[in-house]
Amino acid sequence: MTVKLAVIYYSSTGTNYQLAQWAEKGGKEAGAEVKVLKVPELAPQSAIEQNPAWKAHVKATKDVPEVSLDDLEWADAIIFSVPTRFGNMPAQMKQFLDQTGGLWYHGKLINKVVSAMSSAQNLHGGQEATILSLYTTMHHWGALIASPGYTDPVLFTTGGNPYGTSVTVDQDGKMQENVEPAVMHQVKRTIDIAKKIKS
Amino acid sequence: MTVKLAVIYYSSTGTNYQLAQWAEKGGKEAGAEVKVLKVPELAPQSAIEQNPAWKAHVKATKDVPEVSLDDLEWADAIIFSVPTRFGNMPAQMKQFLDQTGGLWYHGKLINKVVSAMSSAQNLHGGQEATILSLYTTMHHWGALIASPGYTDPVLFTTGGNPYGTSVTVDQDGKMQENVEPAVMHQVKRTIDIAKKIKS
Amino acid sequence: MTVKLAVIYYSSTGTNYQLAQWAEKGGKEAGAEVKVLKVPELAPQSAIEQNPAWKAHVKATKDVPEVSLDDLEWADAIIFSVPTRFGNMPAQMKQFLDQTGGLWYHGKLINKVVSAMSSAQNLHGGQEATILSLYTTMHHWGALIASPGYTDPVLFTTGGNPYGTSVTVDQDGKMQENVEPAVMHQVKRTIDIAKKIKS
Amino acid sequence: MTVKLAVIYYSSTGTNYQLAQWAEKGGKEAGAEVKVLKVPELAPQSAIEQNPAWKAHVKATKDVPEVSLDDLEWADAIIFSVPTRFGNMPAQMKQFLDQTGGLWYHGKLINKVVSAMSSAQNLHGGQEATILSLYTTMHHWGALIASPGYTDPVLFTTGGNPYGTSVTVDQDGKMQENVEPAVMHQVKRTIDIAKKIKS
Repeated sequence: MTVKLAVIYYSSTGTNYQLAQWAEKGGKEAGAEVKVLKVPELAPQSAIEQNPAWKAHVKATKDVPEVSLDDLEWADAIIFSVPTRFGNMPAQMKQFLDQTGGLWYHGKLINKVVSAMSSAQNLHGGQEATILSLYTTMHHWGALIASPGYTDPVLFTTGGNPYGTSVTVDQDGKMQENVEPAVMHQVKRTIDIAKKIKS
Repeated sequence: MTVKLAVIYYSSTGTNYQLAQWAEKGGKEAGAEVKVLKVPELAPQSAIEQNPAWKAHVKATKDVPEVSLDDLEWADAIIFSVPTRFGNMPAQMKQFLDQTGGLWYHGKLINKVVSAMSSAQNLHGGQEATILSLYTTMHHWGALIASPGYTDPVLFTTGGNPYGTSVTVDQDGKMQENVEPAVMHQVKRTIDIAKKIKS
Repeated sequence: MTVKLAVIYYSSTGTNYQLAQWAEKGGKEAGAEVKVLKVPELAPQSAIEQNPAWKAHVKATKDVPEVSLDDLEWADAIIFSVPTRFGNMPAQMKQFLDQTGGLWYHGKLINKVVSAMSSAQNLHGGQEATILSLYTTMHHWGALIASPGYTDPVLFTTGGNPYGTSVTVDQDGKMQENVEPAVMHQVKRTIDIAKKIKS
Repeated sequence: MTVKLAVIYYSSTGTNYQLAQWAEKGGKEAGAEVKVLKVPELAPQSAIEQNPAWKAHVKATKDVPEVSLDDLEWADAIIFSVPTRFGNMPAQMKQFLDQTGGLWYHGKLINKVVSAMSSAQNLHGGQEATILSLYTTMHHWGALIASPGYTDPVLFTTGGNPYGTSVTVDQDGKMQENVEPAVMHQVKRTIDIAKKIKS
């Protein structure tokens, strides 16, 4: 039975899109059917225009499909990836989650197997708190939270965030740690659990 | 010295606007200069139109000013009031907070004295988690968090949420507890602390 | 395949022992092999003696076995039940969890299917925050968190705490809500998920 | 008016004692009267004996006074310092906090100005979550939480944990970052706020 994995992310300058792409790669290697999906932007075009990196990223990802409620119904497993915004997910992701009331009411989000990833500019700039904020919402969904914990030795070499893979980026958007192996493990684990739940 | 209090809320059908109005009343009684301010709506007009209570509330509060970044600079104390959305603040409030990066960068949010209020439809539907999610962001601001705790006997009679006043509303939007006294105390406490910080 | 369920609780005057007993009943009805286990007391005997209800409860439950690390290895699924202590689990439970470093190091806690329950004296006295504090530790274990969410209509009638069943008790220790149906559902759900994970 | 600062810590092998000593230094430089106080150990002597570093630390700090409830009443400001234990404070600290029910009941903990520090072995091993767990309890006290946020440029150079100073230690207990400047700032800030509250 093939697991359907939705990788749902928000990215302004590319970090979380990169994490999402690694999740896609890991998902395919693990035999899942994968969709990489962005949440709709809320910022006005004028704000984006003022930030060259943001503008370039929006352009570069214009063909990445926007996530829909149907994608949530479709998915067996979901990986979320978001930068921190003051220790919580960005409004863009929250706005998408806030629109799931109908699916929630009809029980369509129950038993989705989920985990999350994050990024921040400071070493302890909300990497943990941001993921935990997302999981709080997942409890409301009735999702199953399959965070990585310390389920593989590779996690000790990539920051060891038990709530989900996280990365620190510098002012220029350069990732400070090589977290690709941690993403690969997290995705595989999420899919393995989803396979059991689906069976 | 007069404390400047901003009561910043999001409300779709009126509960948190009512909480905000009580906060305004309490703030004035405590001698503060008070502004009641709503955060901008993110929902499309079509969604609002489909919900008569929401539509009516939007109309009824059309003259309440929208909060601006200047209001944050102006304020010595801030009371936030939000309904839960899956155990976290609504995207509308998060979107406003996400826009405070410039003020944050210039240190303009430091030492704001803050506390928060919440509402939910279930008795334990996120009343606690929602307020705590807001405080996580306040730590990033360098704000001072003056939650009510159990600083007055009245709080034991109104639900006793130590993180901030919260209320449960039924399907028709009717509040299930009389929390006005708790709001009045919370606001007075927030202002008292702000007065000391400002001095 | 029979699921092995450990119901691990701390109780000073009986509320969480009652929740644990309902969990035991629900577990057996769902076909699981169930152990009800208390965590060791930390309070000095003198403190217990001064509180007649506490003293009586300690006596009444003297034959309930104390949880051991072997019980954790044995279990496929775990239900935790704790009163709040200032918005977090009691030190008694934390002390037990802190001793799981060896099991953790050897990966013996991975994929345990867990959920938690709580109680408090105020309506919003930490019912949510206490359960969430326990789940934070579960992420470190690499456990799978199967909170109830709103996965059954009965939850809407028993307080609707999506993180786990919770109950409010008055000064005399009397439960203010009938949460037995919520406990029964939560346990069944936890076991159903564990059955799939084990398969 | 001299601020009375209690630095309350738990340390098994020395990291948080070092943080506490820096806090003491910072407190004295800021003109406060400072007490460094350890919370009582809960581990059996046999466990301590098996770990040479732990044993050595216990011996080295045998003359540091144990914190008492009177110290809490005495203090205007409190800095907590704890290692993470699975994303939450250690049971030793929780056990101490759990004993403050009497002070809490009589309102003796209201308006204490508090902030917290943490350590972990992994880069994202609970540094954020542990401090936030402590603040949840502080809300119940009615304390005022004066986390560092980003209130000084030095914080950007020392990990930038807005909830409180945190440090990563390697397997040998060696700190991976120089956080002394962050501790110094955090303490000064906590005292500055306490001075205003006390006035």
